[in-house]
Amino acid sequence: MATLADIGVSALINILTSFAFLLAFALLRIQPINDRVYFPKWYISGGRSSPRGTRNFVGKFVNLNFKTYLTFLNWMPQALRMSESEIITHAGLDSAAFLRIYTLGIKIFVPVTVVALLILIPVNVSSGTLFFLRKELVVSNIDKLSISNVPPKSTRFFVHIGLEYLFTAWICFLLYKEYDNVASMRLAFFASQRRRVEQFTVVVRNIPHISGHSISETVDSFFQTNHPNHYIGHQGVYNANKFAKLVRRRERLQNWLDYYQLKFDRHPDKKRPTVNTGFLGLLGRKVDAIEYYKQVIKDLDTLMISERQRVIKDSKSVLPVAFLSFDSRWGASVCAQTQQSKNPTLWLTDWAPEPRDVYWRNLAIPFVSLTIRKFVITALVFALIFFYMIPIAFVQSLANLEGLERVAPFLRTVIELKFIKSFLQGFLPGLALKIFLYILPTVLMIMSKIEGYIALSTLERKTASKYYYFMLVNVFLGSIITGTAFEQLHAFLHQSATQIPRTIGVSIPMKATFFMTYIMVDGWAGIAGEILRLKPLVIYHLKNMFLVKTDRDRGKAMDPGSVDFPETIPSLQLYFLLGIVYAVVTPLLLPFIVVFFAFAYLVYRHQIINVYNQQYESAAAFWPHVHSRIIASLIISQLLLLGLLSTKKAAKSTPLLVMLPALTYVFHVYCRSRFEPAFRKYPLEEAMSKDLLEKSTEPDLNIKAYLADAYLHPIFRSFEVEEEELVEVRVDKHETHAASPPLMSEHSSPSASHHHHHHIEEPSPPHYNDYPTSPPSYYYHEPSHLRYGYHYQGEP
Amino acid sequence: MATLADIGVSALINILTSFAFLLAFALLRIQPINDRVYFPKWYISGGRSSPRGTRNFVGKFVNLNFKTYLTFLNWMPQALRMSESEIITHAGLDSAAFLRIYTLGIKIFVPVTVVALLILIPVNVSSGTLFFLRKELVVSNIDKLSISNVPPKSTRFFVHIGLEYLFTAWICFLLYKEYDNVASMRLAFFASQRRRVEQFTVVVRNIPHISGHSISETVDSFFQTNHPNHYIGHQGVYNANKFAKLVRRRERLQNWLDYYQLKFDRHPDKKRPTVNTGFLGLLGRKVDAIEYYKQVIKDLDTLMISERQRVIKDSKSVLPVAFLSFDSRWGASVCAQTQQSKNPTLWLTDWAPEPRDVYWRNLAIPFVSLTIRKFVITALVFALIFFYMIPIAFVQSLANLEGLERVAPFLRTVIELKFIKSFLQGFLPGLALKIFLYILPTVLMIMSKIEGYIALSTLERKTASKYYYFMLVNVFLGSIITGTAFEQLHAFLHQSATQIPRTIGVSIPMKATFFMTYIMVDGWAGIAGEILRLKPLVIYHLKNMFLVKTDRDRGKAMDPGSVDFPETIPSLQLYFLLGIVYAVVTPLLLPFIVVFFAFAYLVYRHQIINVYNQQYESAAAFWPHVHSRIIASLIISQLLLLGLLSTKKAAKSTPLLVMLPALTYVFHVYCRSRFEPAFRKYPLEEAMSKDLLEKSTEPDLNIKAYLADAYLHPIFRSFEVEEEELVEVRVDKHETHAASPPLMSEHSSPSASHHHHHHIEEPSPPHYNDYPTSPPSYYYHEPSHLRYGYHYQGEP
Repeated sequence: MATLADIGVSALINILTSFAFLLAFALLRIQPINDRVYFPKWYISGGRSSPRGTRNFVGKFVNLNFKTYLTFLNWMPQALRMSESEIITHAGLDSAAFLRIYTLGIKIFVPVTVVALLILIPVNVSSGTLFFLRKELVVSNIDKLSISNVPPKSTRFFVHIGLEYLFTAWICFLLYKEYDNVASMRLAFFASQRRRVEQFTVVVRNIPHISGHSISETVDSFFQTNHPNHYIGHQGVYNANKFAKLVRRRERLQNWLDYYQLKFDRHPDKKRPTVNTGFLGLLGRKVDAIEYYKQVIKDLDTLMISERQRVIKDSKSVLPVAFLSFDSRWGASVCAQTQQSKNPTLWLTDWAPEPRDVYWRNLAIPFVSLTIRKFVITALVFALIFFYMIPIAFVQSLANLEGLERVAPFLRTVIELKFIKSFLQGFLPGLALKIFLYILPTVLMIMSKIEGYIALSTLERKTASKYYYFMLVNVFLGSIITGTAFEQLHAFLHQSATQIPRTIGVSIPMKATFFMTYIMVDGWAGIAGEILRLKPLVIYHLKNMFLVKTDRDRGKAMDPGSVDFPETIPSLQLYFLLGIVYAVVTPLLLPFIVVFFAFAYLVYRHQIINVYNQQYESAAAFWPHVHSRIIASLIISQLLLLGLLSTKKAAKSTPLLVMLPALTYVFHVYCRSRFEPAFRKYPLEEAMSKDLLEKSTEPDLNIKAYLADAYLHPIFRSFEVEEEELVEVRVDKHETHAASPPLMSEHSSPSASHHHHHHIEEPSPPHYNDYPTSPPSYYYHEPSHLRYGYHYQGEP
Repeated sequence: MATLADIGVSALINILTSFAFLLAFALLRIQPINDRVYFPKWYISGGRSSPRGTRNFVGKFVNLNFKTYLTFLNWMPQALRMSESEIITHAGLDSAAFLRIYTLGIKIFVPVTVVALLILIPVNVSSGTLFFLRKELVVSNIDKLSISNVPPKSTRFFVHIGLEYLFTAWICFLLYKEYDNVASMRLAFFASQRRRVEQFTVVVRNIPHISGHSISETVDSFFQTNHPNHYIGHQGVYNANKFAKLVRRRERLQNWLDYYQLKFDRHPDKKRPTVNTGFLGLLGRKVDAIEYYKQVIKDLDTLMISERQRVIKDSKSVLPVAFLSFDSRWGASVCAQTQQSKNPTLWLTDWAPEPRDVYWRNLAIPFVSLTIRKFVITALVFALIFFYMIPIAFVQSLANLEGLERVAPFLRTVIELKFIKSFLQGFLPGLALKIFLYILPTVLMIMSKIEGYIALSTLERKTASKYYYFMLVNVFLGSIITGTAFEQLHAFLHQSATQIPRTIGVSIPMKATFFMTYIMVDGWAGIAGEILRLKPLVIYHLKNMFLVKTDRDRGKAMDPGSVDFPETIPSLQLYFLLGIVYAVVTPLLLPFIVVFFAFAYLVYRHQIINVYNQQYESAAAFWPHVHSRIIASLIISQLLLLGLLSTKKAAKSTPLLVMLPALTYVFHVYCRSRFEPAFRKYPLEEAMSKDLLEKSTEPDLNIKAYLADAYLHPIFRSFEVEEEELVEVRVDKHETHAASPPLMSEHSSPSASHHHHHHIEEPSPPHYNDYPTSPPSYYYHEPSHLRYGYHYQGEP
């Protein structure tokens, strides 16, 4: 059992480690060569260009201005300088709301720490039961400062209960204020935002198949009937998974071509690179590599064009999903919030996610399978949380030295070396667990994807909640009650409802030192590692050395990424849980939490300003989860305190605590009904006022043109970018004519997204009339309104 | 422990009792004097008029046609003759769906009974562990037919588990089909219905108070902005509780007046009746009763008129609630389903209940208090279910003979009589419990009212669910585990999650005989009592003897009432639970259930056709509850079987059962997402098609006129009916003029509901312009559109 001195030493080591990381960061960040690793956000937003051009050769790589070394910690005040509204403009509301979790932590725990230390430490110390047991090993001097030191039946427990009430009230007060703030920030964000396509768009799933009609026809006739005043058209969704495979193959080939081209360009004097055409480039004919890849890519492009034509033409590749466009936010809001059809499993409407937030793959999942998928995944997550030790133990039992020797006898001589043997024996058993924990977030993300959510933001939220449950059971409970999660589950099933909080509650004070160390190692050092960005730094320099040719490539190589919500938010919630649980039990843990929140706030503020580039904007849609997890932490802490006190025979004071969980829950229910709709629905009042404002400022806005192709599958879009250079890749005009008239329009462009709204005014070429009257995947309301991919209804 | 013979005797007694009841009913119903008690529905629907006019004097009261006595059981085929669609037209969809619960019971249990008896009885009997224990008193021969007879570790338990799977599948199949049926019946009902005001009406609660504007102005400006194309006006809601009190007092006085008038009319030769004006009619001056009451009523009418003017004029009596009118079902549907305002606790819109379904009192409850009310009532219901024995035991301890003698010493001589003493000693302790159980539904209804639901149908559903929980704990669990509910709760809190189903499961087979008796006494005899209608019969004849003067009074006296959903539906659900739990354990119980369902179906079909007159129509809104309670019964039965088998050490077969509750739950989740929206929302497709149909059939329908005053507070309406005779009760025209211009319209009618739509065309009298420009509770869009109670917006 760790004593105060042990914790002090551990804290010193961790502080030194963190400080070393910070120093390394401070030195690395001012080197011009690392500029793109530590300030990618500014490159993307255009606020910074390469600093290397202006200096001499050495200055390009190493910072020679020694004055800057003296102010190497000035990133901290810099990180604090930007105001919240600037952060919202610079990095989006998600990032700003994410930072608010840290400030919430600081606001909660600073007063709680002060009050708890000032009141509880004297109360606990002066009670002094444990002083009599000084010789026993089980008791460390940290326990003397905790609730363990208070003798059973003491009236001092009234102080603890009173503080539990006080802290709950304080946390609830802050939670309420914060929920209110975030909800109004979200609405203000929507209101202040420029026009956004998703405000006019609704996604409809499970479109029924009506025989003799294409999906596009069905959609149009349904919504023209039921939303006659606001519906203006829709955009179909195609099952482009095969096409996506081709796109990936083309990218791979392009990479090889670039590689050989680069190789040749650098040394044009050497002979041109060659490659074998057979299996893995090892067998087959030797040919000129550049010419070969150029030819292969050209062939592939032809294939892709015909594949895309097939996708767009084939009725089977049109999914029963569509993005509906409305002429006003009001119309879209109404359609998203109402039930459309008698059969509530058909015509399921919901807000469309941002185009970049859509997870296209899952749009193809039929509704019936969603219930089953959700059930299966829930069962799997449950199994993963409680039984993950079983396969790992199995792998561990295999991955011992004997097993290794059996599989690879030639290693025996090496393994039998004493030094290596002892290293492997210490290392191997842990390896499986380490690998498992490393890939866990990925596994959980895959599970969420299988569940069938159609937005990346939802996927990340669902992954975060799975990860939270894993941590709650395996880090929090698993550390308090020894034994595997499976053993715990077994114990819980065979204990009564009142016994469980007792069992856990009793062990809580004893685990305080463990969690202090955990906070320092996982929290402090983890955050310091976060700012150092060691992995991206290495990857960037490796890429820079071998792959980068142009500035565009360099931009690609820096890849700032987004804040890793699925991992960071659950960890944060765990720290809230630890702080709230230990606030009354072992207040000495609180300063560690406060330091963590303050430090992490600084670091993430810096990272959000300078590094991360969010992939999507969900407008703080994760806040209800943050709120309800903190409420859950409160209730857990109350129940555990109840269990702890019931073992202390504090019969007079304990009943006072029984009401608290119920009251906390009522508070939660109230908050949910008060604020959650702001995160789920878009109020008509807001929609209408934004509509009216827009109508007065931009009276002749062409909303149809604005929405055209907004929700085109990104696969078609990405292909289009590269094909500017591929104009010569063209199939015979006459041959493809009947097959794909839109591809043969006057623009002669094979890209779907080239068909902009001005097509509506174009006279229709006569041969369009030869086209079959009811093509399966798209059709025209009037022959002159040629649209494809995106279908307009005729003017009402 | 009851044997088969005991049960047989008990069954015989109960069958005889029921048969006696049926005989009494058959005889009573054909007496003309009882016609209004047994066929009130036909009087109300106009299909029957008093049979007494056509006969001679004796024939008016007693049926002298002896031929009808021979066919006295012909009500049974008669009850079955009406088709379901006729029942819907005749008695409404609620009644038809209610009958479907019984047919569902028959459909479920007839095949289950056959299969269970044919398969399980041989399996159980031939196992024969219990034959060895024949001498023991604990075992009755019914147990030999139950699962108790199967020895531990027997492989025969595979049969039981297989049947549990089979029965679950069969019940789920029927539940799915039935949910589907009822959902489409509900939609078809809406579609086939004539135009109904509630389809065009939305209730909005928690209208914010904007200073300087009346609530009516706020509502109009908000909805004119946010629903510009469909909103046509609204109707305010007044806090008329004081006025309602006056109405009740007036009714009481009117009753006295009628009484004296009747007394005088019957014996006009005697002197006119007199009454004392003082306390309780005992003290004070003696005056002529008829004149006195006429004068008092006249004074009260004056008071009521001024009170009503105050209510309508006073801004404080306007509640922040309004009924919004829309020009189409589509518009109303959109408004009801969407969120209106940024602050989700303001402008809460929902479907308006039918006018006769509105529970006006609760419209005044502010939103903030709803969460608290719900929490408090939940806690109270919990306490009521688990601790109701405590106050009853307390009352019982008081209500013994010693206590009675102390309170009323003069009774001592009577009480000390041996016969009376023994009677009282047996009777008193049970009295408190009997009174409690009798008033329980009323108490639960009051609790639901405090929770703040605004529709009678919702109130009844919520009461039903509270009553169900009470029965589940106190009848089902309470009978299986002896001890009070409080003791059970204590035991459950101190038992592990796996132990609870064991504890209950083990006792289940032993309680089969108890439940058989319960089904016979509570079920069979209860249903027979239901058809006899003894209480309404007595009350009707008493009223008829003393109060009835005219045919209208007789109509009032017959008071058919509605089906008592809050009591009958939970009892039904209890029978489903018993049947499902015992299907595998003691199949011998099933025939009792089948008889109950068949008999109850017959009786309720008769009652719905001939007696009950539903107060409101909720279009089978209770079905989701019925469905989910049967699912809950399935899961309970599976868990209990699991517990029972785990004590039988059937380790091979038990794990097979673990999946079943999970699968059942998944089925439930699927059903909920598939069908429940049909009961909560009104799909836009339906609304639009009904709108379009109406537009084509009735192109010049004046929807404003149709909706005018539809949601006027019924208090104003009921007052109006009686005041036709009170035209002379009029205050000075000029005096009330400024105070209440609408009351002084050309109709000279003091009733609010007299202001029909043709007022719109009426030229406004010049003195209206003298009226203050912004009266607090109502205002005019244009001076010529004089409306009150109901506010139109100007034509767009």
